[in-house]
Amino acid sequence: MGCFARVETNGGAFEQVNLLYGENPNKAVRQFTKFFNEAGIQTHMLDRGLNGLRMYPVPADVRKLMYKVKKAQGVDITRIFCGLNEVRNIIPSIKYALAAGMIPQATLCITFSPVHTVEYYAAIANQLIEAGAPEICLKDMAGIGRPGMLGQLTRTIKEKHPEVIIQYHGHSGPGLSMASILEVCENGADIIDVAMEPLSWGKVHSDVISVQAMLKDKGFQVPEINMKAYMKARSMTQEFIDDFLGYFMDATNKHMSSLLLTCGLPGGMMGSMMADLKGVHAGINMILRSKNKPKLTLDDLLVMLFEEVEYVWPKLGYPPLVTPFSQYVKNVALMNIMSQVKEEPRWSMIDNNTWDMILGKSGKLPGALAPEIIELAKEKGLQFTDEDPQTNFPDQLDAYRAEMKENGWESGEDDEELFELAMHDRQYRDYKSGVAKKRFEEELQRAKDAALASKGFSEEEVRKFKRSKAEPITALEKGRVIWEIDVESASLAPSVGKVYNPEETFCYISTPWGTHDKMLANFKGRIIEVCAKQGSIVNKGDVLAYIERTDLAS
Amino acid sequence: MGCFARVETNGGAFEQVNLLYGENPNKAVRQFTKFFNEAGIQTHMLDRGLNGLRMYPVPADVRKLMYKVKKAQGVDITRIFCGLNEVRNIIPSIKYALAAGMIPQATLCITFSPVHTVEYYAAIANQLIEAGAPEICLKDMAGIGRPGMLGQLTRTIKEKHPEVIIQYHGHSGPGLSMASILEVCENGADIIDVAMEPLSWGKVHSDVISVQAMLKDKGFQVPEINMKAYMKARSMTQEFIDDFLGYFMDATNKHMSSLLLTCGLPGGMMGSMMADLKGVHAGINMILRSKNKPKLTLDDLLVMLFEEVEYVWPKLGYPPLVTPFSQYVKNVALMNIMSQVKEEPRWSMIDNNTWDMILGKSGKLPGALAPEIIELAKEKGLQFTDEDPQTNFPDQLDAYRAEMKENGWESGEDDEELFELAMHDRQYRDYKSGVAKKRFEEELQRAKDAALASKGFSEEEVRKFKRSKAEPITALEKGRVIWEIDVESASLAPSVGKVYNPEETFCYISTPWGTHDKMLANFKGRIIEVCAKQGSIVNKGDVLAYIERTDLAS
Repeated sequence: MGCFARVETNGGAFEQVNLLYGENPNKAVRQFTKFFNEAGIQTHMLDRGLNGLRMYPVPADVRKLMYKVKKAQGVDITRIFCGLNEVRNIIPSIKYALAAGMIPQATLCITFSPVHTVEYYAAIANQLIEAGAPEICLKDMAGIGRPGMLGQLTRTIKEKHPEVIIQYHGHSGPGLSMASILEVCENGADIIDVAMEPLSWGKVHSDVISVQAMLKDKGFQVPEINMKAYMKARSMTQEFIDDFLGYFMDATNKHMSSLLLTCGLPGGMMGSMMADLKGVHAGINMILRSKNKPKLTLDDLLVMLFEEVEYVWPKLGYPPLVTPFSQYVKNVALMNIMSQVKEEPRWSMIDNNTWDMILGKSGKLPGALAPEIIELAKEKGLQFTDEDPQTNFPDQLDAYRAEMKENGWESGEDDEELFELAMHDRQYRDYKSGVAKKRFEEELQRAKDAALASKGFSEEEVRKFKRSKAEPITALEKGRVIWEIDVESASLAPSVGKVYNPEETFCYISTPWGTHDKMLANFKGRIIEVCAKQGSIVNKGDVLAYIERTDLAS
Repeated sequence: MGCFARVETNGGAFEQVNLLYGENPNKAVRQFTKFFNEAGIQTHMLDRGLNGLRMYPVPADVRKLMYKVKKAQGVDITRIFCGLNEVRNIIPSIKYALAAGMIPQATLCITFSPVHTVEYYAAIANQLIEAGAPEICLKDMAGIGRPGMLGQLTRTIKEKHPEVIIQYHGHSGPGLSMASILEVCENGADIIDVAMEPLSWGKVHSDVISVQAMLKDKGFQVPEINMKAYMKARSMTQEFIDDFLGYFMDATNKHMSSLLLTCGLPGGMMGSMMADLKGVHAGINMILRSKNKPKLTLDDLLVMLFEEVEYVWPKLGYPPLVTPFSQYVKNVALMNIMSQVKEEPRWSMIDNNTWDMILGKSGKLPGALAPEIIELAKEKGLQFTDEDPQTNFPDQLDAYRAEMKENGWESGEDDEELFELAMHDRQYRDYKSGVAKKRFEEELQRAKDAALASKGFSEEEVRKFKRSKAEPITALEKGRVIWEIDVESASLAPSVGKVYNPEETFCYISTPWGTHDKMLANFKGRIIEVCAKQGSIVNKGDVLAYIERTDLAS
């Protein structure tokens, strides 16, 4: 396309999602980075700092191994962030990346509060640059950073560190991102994150076409876009959305909303927050009725929640409203509303994860806690800590190495399989056993059925519709169906979604006259329905299963 | 809400849409402006210049009367535009508005081309300001104006005319609008058009919440937003979307797309353009196959169309890509593609409306026509003109006055009914006869049925569903149903959607024993289904019709 200097290839949820599909993330990453490496485009990944590629803390030895593995897999740049902007969670990754030969891009998670000033962020940037980061990312993950403030921050960092590369990453949900892009560029930013159709705009990122046009008109040096290549990449992406990804995408991702700007919560939370409110709405009105108070509409409740977040957030020390801290703050606000409706005091219900954040176990909070929160912790006998969060999570690679040995699993090229097990142990085990693949294929089939059903087809019609696009595999002889012969565990019919090649053995029929007749799949494709159980008796011509062919052009 | 200095109440399509609903736009405008007038908020309307409130030219006397009427109806400001930025089409409205005591806001229709430079627009602004306009609107109706250029244009106008108010109107479709808002504000713009949920973002306008937050952070003086009022207005708007408007809204209005930026076509055209392309796709591939050429995908065709628009637009003199000129340019490009596929020369198919534009009948084109277009006009014996477009449309009020007299219609307070007839004659006659109301109610019912059917209900189920929410009106006696007695035309059953009050006569039953028994409606509501035809025989207890009650809280 001629316009990309670097492309995000992996990190964040990427590897884990691969495992959840039942596929090998190490193969995927190597294949994906290869094309970009060959084209001279830098590849980059996302590292959640203390949490690595998952949602809870990772031992130091696993994080260190990650950098050795990812460098070997062809990844050039790592974007390292901590939801609290806690430098102690970020700096180890900078060191590991440098040691492995990768470029560490240290990150500032942008939010909007009286403590999240230009000076506050610039001071953190100084520490990260001192620790060795040659690049700084302004990660505006909720898109609520104000354009003016982002421009000033860029200028402040650039004035002190003109050699440091600044990259801006902004979500378009509340609509500020294009103005923010213009402001950071006017103030010295070097690289801008963009998206392209069919995944641009909505709550995602600005489209490269608009960003290029805006900056070109403003006199910036920007590459031209090869529109033929854009349209080709657009339709290829649409293909895999149609194939499976689209069944798991929320249509409201395409919608923007300014409402969350008022309380600072990220746009992606709107859906789950409305679901929460709907869940408690009837209950709250029942309590109000019992107290002879007027009932609340869902909109009243939403405004109350926004206002309660505004009240609660400063008292909790302004944690940046990014996962998981945004959920914690929202939960506390919702519980406070419930308490007040019941005429109980605020802060009556705070869950353990939120307490851990309050006590400093994830790192230092940006602002000061309110006195009533400190008092409450004392009453409960809870201890505050300012220890390095990493100290609570000792090294674990040896244990995983032992597990691999015991299972006879290879630790892989550059120890990449060992790394995957250590980073996502549960998901890796499910991938190895085949459970992940089976579960995903079933889930996909359910989602496809639900999509058809929502178009108004009955279950029977859905089955007919699916069958109409598939080939039946019929029994060649009367006999007992043997799907597999497994001496260790129970034999099973193949799971829906299993892929066959024409020459592959499909099943055996154990005939009354004592032969075991092998049946071939005959088609290249995946099973969409199994009609005969292991051990059942079928007549010649009975349908055993339906295969949807994947070798036909659509 | 505390944040609006002015609100658009009418003009553009507003009055015509009222007539199409079968309702009186004059009543609606007076009622709508009243609240804002009382609250001290200015009201404003949209005037299409030569085309007034419709899509084709209006006589001068009708346009003049419009200003007398709209001032009397409580409208303070008029935004006057011409799709070609032809000052001869705009200046008469400036004069009429000043004479009537309204504030004329003259408009620059923004597009992006080598001829649409800051100097070009500033020169037009000078002429409009000289003609008496105290305000200038930058109407960025496709949202393709580049932020940098818009900022420079604002500064250029403000430097020469510091007293002139500048208002920016930008659509958010291609995503540039927030950056454009920031740029025009930094360069002296006074007022920014915004929207609010559930109608903000997508291909519409930026939300007031985001605009306020961005400008406040940048140090601009902006009013605070009363969020309780915002949420109230939001849910009231949602109510009428649920009631009827939503059945006519395209879901993709909520989606942004940068694709049209490449050829400059407005975002609103994407849907109809894709429909056009789907229409010709198979035909084009059939021709290609007959010539042994490779077939094209829909995406290939879309890229070809974009490229052809880029080729055609300069040669047609860069008419701003706004209705109807955007359609003309797109049509010529599409026809050129068809011609080329058939191995015929370009420009073989140009329709008459497009020729009128080329010949100068709508006003002067911004750029020079290509020599081959001028040559083609000569070959066809067509004459170019530089006459004032208005001269082709002589005064017509006297004829409409005569029509009103003949029909015994009142010309209304401040001649407002005369004006409506003269501006939208066909629609006004349909409104007066009741045909418009009947047509709209039927169309709404069809849309509601289609919405239910698309959720997978059969026609029979839709009928049952509708009936389940309605009250049956049953015959009190056996006899012949008389819905109405009309001596002039055929008697008919009431149309679906007709509204009744409980005490209103519903129909008569002519009994075998010679009586005419009056039946009352008994419910307040609207008919959703008629089961008995005029003159049909019913038994006691038969259902004559179903009424959906409107007096029940939902």
